[in-house]
Amino acid sequence: MKFQTLYWQGDIDGRLILTDQRKLPSEFCEIICLDIETLFDSIKTLALRGAPAIGVGAAYGVCLHMKTAASLSLQEALAYLNEGADSLATSRPTAVNLFWALDRIKKTASNFVCQNPEATCNQLRECILLEAKKIDSQDKQMCEDIGRNGLRLIEQNSKVLTHCNAGALATAGVGTALAPMYAAQKAGIDFKVYVDETRPLLQGARLTSWELARNGIDVTVVCDSMAGWLMIKGMIDLIIVGADRIAANGDVANKIGTYSLSVLAKHHNIPFYVAAPTSTFDLSLENGALIPIEQRSGLEISCFNDVETVASGVNVFNPSFDVTPATNITAIITERALIEDVSKKEIAKVVDLEF
Amino acid sequence: MKFQTLYWQGDIDGRLILTDQRKLPSEFCEIICLDIETLFDSIKTLALRGAPAIGVGAAYGVCLHMKTAASLSLQEALAYLNEGADSLATSRPTAVNLFWALDRIKKTASNFVCQNPEATCNQLRECILLEAKKIDSQDKQMCEDIGRNGLRLIEQNSKVLTHCNAGALATAGVGTALAPMYAAQKAGIDFKVYVDETRPLLQGARLTSWELARNGIDVTVVCDSMAGWLMIKGMIDLIIVGADRIAANGDVANKIGTYSLSVLAKHHNIPFYVAAPTSTFDLSLENGALIPIEQRSGLEISCFNDVETVASGVNVFNPSFDVTPATNITAIITERALIEDVSKKEIAKVVDLEF
Repeated sequence: MKFQTLYWQGDIDGRLILTDQRKLPSEFCEIICLDIETLFDSIKTLALRGAPAIGVGAAYGVCLHMKTAASLSLQEALAYLNEGADSLATSRPTAVNLFWALDRIKKTASNFVCQNPEATCNQLRECILLEAKKIDSQDKQMCEDIGRNGLRLIEQNSKVLTHCNAGALATAGVGTALAPMYAAQKAGIDFKVYVDETRPLLQGARLTSWELARNGIDVTVVCDSMAGWLMIKGMIDLIIVGADRIAANGDVANKIGTYSLSVLAKHHNIPFYVAAPTSTFDLSLENGALIPIEQRSGLEISCFNDVETVASGVNVFNPSFDVTPATNITAIITERALIEDVSKKEIAKVVDLEF
Repeated sequence: MKFQTLYWQGDIDGRLILTDQRKLPSEFCEIICLDIETLFDSIKTLALRGAPAIGVGAAYGVCLHMKTAASLSLQEALAYLNEGADSLATSRPTAVNLFWALDRIKKTASNFVCQNPEATCNQLRECILLEAKKIDSQDKQMCEDIGRNGLRLIEQNSKVLTHCNAGALATAGVGTALAPMYAAQKAGIDFKVYVDETRPLLQGARLTSWELARNGIDVTVVCDSMAGWLMIKGMIDLIIVGADRIAANGDVANKIGTYSLSVLAKHHNIPFYVAAPTSTFDLSLENGALIPIEQRSGLEISCFNDVETVASGVNVFNPSFDVTPATNITAIITERALIEDVSKKEIAKVVDLEF
């Protein structure tokens, strides 16, 4: 990868560096998060986005929060840590990796305090920074493994369609949906990628095209509305998208537009794959209808760089995600296995609740 | 209507006034076309757009062209008129109303010259201005008639989805796809309209929302990618779109995204209607595969008000139209009848080639 989406710099008093994804592709610049508030805003305003990257970022975010806890007793520090984690959890509602990573940090901290009641607050901070780094490096490994498990889906001269950005910019590693593409490139396979621009925030146009082109992969941007036309014209062989949360039965919440794509794929007999780490599964939810869908400001649609694109006073509806039923999904590519029978039973077999 | 999309001002030496649709909704301003070149550029750059409106505009465009013909002999004037018409015909390739209106003006002129070999050039100009005004007023009547024929499709509390702009801004009258909505409003029916923003040029967001809101109709803008999600959520009862060209078998070329919508509608058992005047039918084409599809500049997608939205050097694919097969269309609403059996035979019955 020719850039880093997020990384920790320094020791427990260090800082988190993020690529500011709001400014790509016209500007490449970094945000230096010295405190949890800067990270919270970065997640809220999508400077840092992508379900796995938000998870990694949030884990480091708790470490930022604990920089102001140095003077607290161990028990006070634990309570303070939980407060920080709970506040970060309110930054985005749909992607489950955020809650997963925060829970993991909270459990690690709680276990540490239980087992080391005499420890100092700084030792607790060492412990959770270590855990955040573990989440980070596991995320990188997870991406590689998804790439390996999805590699065989991309054949010589394949034409792949993807939506939004589930690439390196959405993870600490090489991405989820884009991981099989980077793996195919490494394996010397020739293929072509189409990416939906992904309104309203254009993650496909701005981010996916930027990272694929930067890494030498042939990519073409189209409008979201063109997907069906590409399919009927024989220009798409397979579709790979990411996921923000997957219910126990395999229903997938992902960027708005994913559901439409899955219906179009089914109609045209084109395989539709979802790539996501097992941390994206939320087995506590029976099905996708239970996944909370974030509604974002209508201004994301009605205003573009301060230019009005919708007549003033007109209603705008802006659900940020939709839910694709398991029945529309050919297979889910996880870091552990390719789940080819997208059913509650098969998912349970692959997704281990322990970490 | 609280605005006029295009109108002629003055006598044969007059001028054509257009609403500049590139600047809506942030600015409402008019373009004064004193010559054919200004009109050509206005059509090419979409200041004037919408298949029927382009037809009416082109008819007046020939009148503008003839302002510089006053000194010519009648035969020279006829040749000059044909040249002007042929040049206007190259402004856009897909919408057939452009060619239909230009042919009509050419035939009218040729008949006039045949029947009045001693006439002056100015008399020829009077004759074609009259014909252009007839096309204009017939267009207005056509819109009313489409509204009447489509009225029964909109029931109390209907939720209607439309795409792009096939409204008053696309015609000389109250529109095609939007005509049944204006008729329903007049009839006191309560209903709600959703409109796709329609990338890349946002005709739905910028134009349809503007004209419906300006006329007091409840309208909500969504991104193109949200249509499937609205459908599965039970938020759409019917879809009405316009058309740029309809082949003999009922295949419809319309704004890119229409085909995807038709597949989504079919999947969700939602009726899918096309509204268009009979001048939009091109019975010389057996089916939609023969309709030329305009490819427009990738800059329409990769640049927004001079802001780069796609990484530089990345390919962009920008077909401006797609073709929806007749099998995906519930009915075609024309000014003459509602064609409920979208087949070659029924279309031939309704669409009279004579005018």
